[in-house]
Amino acid sequence: MKNTKIKNLIYLFLIPCVFHIGLVRAQGKDGLPNIIIIFTDDMGYGDLGIFGNPTIYTPNLDRMAYEGQKWTNFYVAAPVCTPSRAGLMTGRLPVRSGMASNKKRVLFPNSRGGLPPSEISIAKFLKGAGYATGMIGKWHLGHLKEYMPNAHGFDYYYGIPYSNDMDPVGGISYVDALRNPKIDYFNVPLVRNGIEVERPADQNNLTKKYTEEAVGFIDKNKNKPFFLYLAHAMPHVPLFASTEFKGKSRSGIYGDVIEELDWSVGKVLEALKRNGIDEKTLVVFTSDNGPWLIFDEYGGSPGALKGGKGGTYEGGMRVPAIFRWPGKLKQGVVMEMGSTLDLFPTIAGLIHRDMPNDRVYDGYDLKEVMFNQSKSPRSEILYYRDTEVYAIRKGGLKVHFVTQDEYGNEDMTIHHPALVYNLDVDPGEKKNVSKKHPDFIIEMKKRLEEHKATVSPVVNQLEL
Amino acid sequence: MKNTKIKNLIYLFLIPCVFHIGLVRAQGKDGLPNIIIIFTDDMGYGDLGIFGNPTIYTPNLDRMAYEGQKWTNFYVAAPVCTPSRAGLMTGRLPVRSGMASNKKRVLFPNSRGGLPPSEISIAKFLKGAGYATGMIGKWHLGHLKEYMPNAHGFDYYYGIPYSNDMDPVGGISYVDALRNPKIDYFNVPLVRNGIEVERPADQNNLTKKYTEEAVGFIDKNKNKPFFLYLAHAMPHVPLFASTEFKGKSRSGIYGDVIEELDWSVGKVLEALKRNGIDEKTLVVFTSDNGPWLIFDEYGGSPGALKGGKGGTYEGGMRVPAIFRWPGKLKQGVVMEMGSTLDLFPTIAGLIHRDMPNDRVYDGYDLKEVMFNQSKSPRSEILYYRDTEVYAIRKGGLKVHFVTQDEYGNEDMTIHHPALVYNLDVDPGEKKNVSKKHPDFIIEMKKRLEEHKATVSPVVNQLEL
Repeated sequence: MKNTKIKNLIYLFLIPCVFHIGLVRAQGKDGLPNIIIIFTDDMGYGDLGIFGNPTIYTPNLDRMAYEGQKWTNFYVAAPVCTPSRAGLMTGRLPVRSGMASNKKRVLFPNSRGGLPPSEISIAKFLKGAGYATGMIGKWHLGHLKEYMPNAHGFDYYYGIPYSNDMDPVGGISYVDALRNPKIDYFNVPLVRNGIEVERPADQNNLTKKYTEEAVGFIDKNKNKPFFLYLAHAMPHVPLFASTEFKGKSRSGIYGDVIEELDWSVGKVLEALKRNGIDEKTLVVFTSDNGPWLIFDEYGGSPGALKGGKGGTYEGGMRVPAIFRWPGKLKQGVVMEMGSTLDLFPTIAGLIHRDMPNDRVYDGYDLKEVMFNQSKSPRSEILYYRDTEVYAIRKGGLKVHFVTQDEYGNEDMTIHHPALVYNLDVDPGEKKNVSKKHPDFIIEMKKRLEEHKATVSPVVNQLEL
Repeated sequence: MKNTKIKNLIYLFLIPCVFHIGLVRAQGKDGLPNIIIIFTDDMGYGDLGIFGNPTIYTPNLDRMAYEGQKWTNFYVAAPVCTPSRAGLMTGRLPVRSGMASNKKRVLFPNSRGGLPPSEISIAKFLKGAGYATGMIGKWHLGHLKEYMPNAHGFDYYYGIPYSNDMDPVGGISYVDALRNPKIDYFNVPLVRNGIEVERPADQNNLTKKYTEEAVGFIDKNKNKPFFLYLAHAMPHVPLFASTEFKGKSRSGIYGDVIEELDWSVGKVLEALKRNGIDEKTLVVFTSDNGPWLIFDEYGGSPGALKGGKGGTYEGGMRVPAIFRWPGKLKQGVVMEMGSTLDLFPTIAGLIHRDMPNDRVYDGYDLKEVMFNQSKSPRSEILYYRDTEVYAIRKGGLKVHFVTQDEYGNEDMTIHHPALVYNLDVDPGEKKNVSKKHPDFIIEMKKRLEEHKATVSPVVNQLEL
């Protein structure tokens, strides 16, 4: 009897121990999960097989979605590069950091501003929590030293600091250069930790190089908790694919580029499996904004949504999003709302650290949606075009106070009464139901004023 | 030594035997696979999660596609019920059987015609090969006794002989009755093997009843090779869902109806597994034509495609299609072309029987695409609107000689020059590239004349 009691006592101590070890194992050293964010550039809602594309083959992303979660109501902070990326990195609407502008829209090679050093990026936050932090790809939050990834918490950086269509050389029209691109037309630099390693960057092999770098970073940091931000240059024009992918798809160069990105995702996931850290790693795949429609077959597709890059119809800001974390996420399609603004608070929640409490955040912790497919804490989307809120979604309803077409087609209309769409039954925003919802319009106008009151004036970094 | 030789000899005979038994087991009794065709009514290309729908939850169909093949370039024989079904059942273009009409379009409760007894349906063909044959659901190929499923090779029939919006009772406008439907508004009969069992059919429980019937048929015939044709009434207006599904989706009654159909597919697949015949059964899921767009939220979505039911833009005739046959099909997305016209010759190929050689067939055996993801023998689609060819697809290019909007919006345009779209890069038919392809237009005009020469005049069954 005595022996049994002692045995039981031992078990009593042992069991929690075993559980604890299990937990630590499942989440990597120190119980911290690895985080990978893969961000594509100008990829449309309808560009992936799993999001309905009929002619572009994306088996790796399709499988990633099947094994994880496909988010069908996932948004970005802005319909264009710089502010969208500022929102992702800071968890704050770009107007709060001075990273949105009606005049400039994005940063250019001659810009003097960037993401202010006072801003706390996800990388800085995770570095403070003991993470190895690496960024590969397009930063576009300031190319001067004080704004670059290494100054914002990334131990390692390799990539093009801004868009791949910038630094055009003279003599060719911008549009021609984009439709029939050559490497030499764009004098963009490829940088490793502040040192220029190639100029112009060989864009044909950019997706491939970024992938090799990403796999190298994973291999190197497999025993630490790490954060990897892989921000592809593609499928932003000019479109380039490596020899292995050029001419491979049914859909011309745009399809080739997407299929190479899909291959790249496959390589990243393979590296996680090979290193045995598949179940310790959350991977989030998404895009920075909708497709650039003026480029026809050189731009992507919003699928069944309306509009594209630059606009505040769904096609501009609702993006394909796939989350994967084997053994952790509740598999399936997620129709709850999410935003790139939520990634920061979600990551903070995952590592049980409080968000900084000295500033306004615009995101929500999506952990429960990920783990239990619970109702999202996010019930609202603010659709900023540059510094102005043009539209608000609340639940299934969306109000447009102002609409303006995508970049390249800039007709602006102020709506009286505002337009209202029911996105649950009409995701393509075809049927204005404002007559049915006068109270919703009034409520959202109030909400807009409330929101505006939370935005303090700051230096506009894009106009410096 | 002698003993070993004898042993070897025994093995020599035994091994093929074991293989043979294995083969027979894998394909059911007599080596014949079971065939199930699930056909929905007016479901759009964009209505399923796996085809990009953001607000309708279809986990069973998503999984079916993941486990099997999602066909993204799959077509029907016609953009409306009766001719589409005639094409599926006979493997022949509806004009060949007199089942298309510019005046009537489909069969009505007062029609006197139907699929001629001289036509050979898939059911008649498979019955001849020893199959148990059952049909559950909407026939719409003639409701007089001589045209009904039992007269066309089906041992068993249970369903509504025509559309669920027919036999309207007086006093309510057709459109009102469809938008706010009640069972009593549509005096449609529910028939079992020629005997009326309910009138008006309780449409609220129709999907559920059809599913129970389908599962019952599978259970009963699990030891025979069987052919089951399950043709749902939904999501054709009037929309009805059972209590369990009404209000369940985010997308109103249309979403509820699709989610119940998804549940139904899950039940059918479950029955196959439960009976241990999962690997002996090919299941094909598809729709009879595109969504009925004039019904807004009561109609489906063509996704990123253009147009809907009745029209010859892609949305009218390209349909969601999923094939499943565990252990047999080469899993993945199939972008090769296929058509419901191909199902008959494909099935004939699977059971190693020749097609009847006394008539013209319009389909191809897709076996190699299913088993090896080979190039499709089909490289062409003829887009019939009623009795006329309006458009032809050859490879990635499509020419429209004539366009006419969906039913309910009938403006017709004859194009000089014809419109040309490159569906590989532009599935949404947005950018006419006719100037680039004058030779293609000439070639397709010739093809059209060639095709017309193969069509012999027959009695128009829809106009009787």
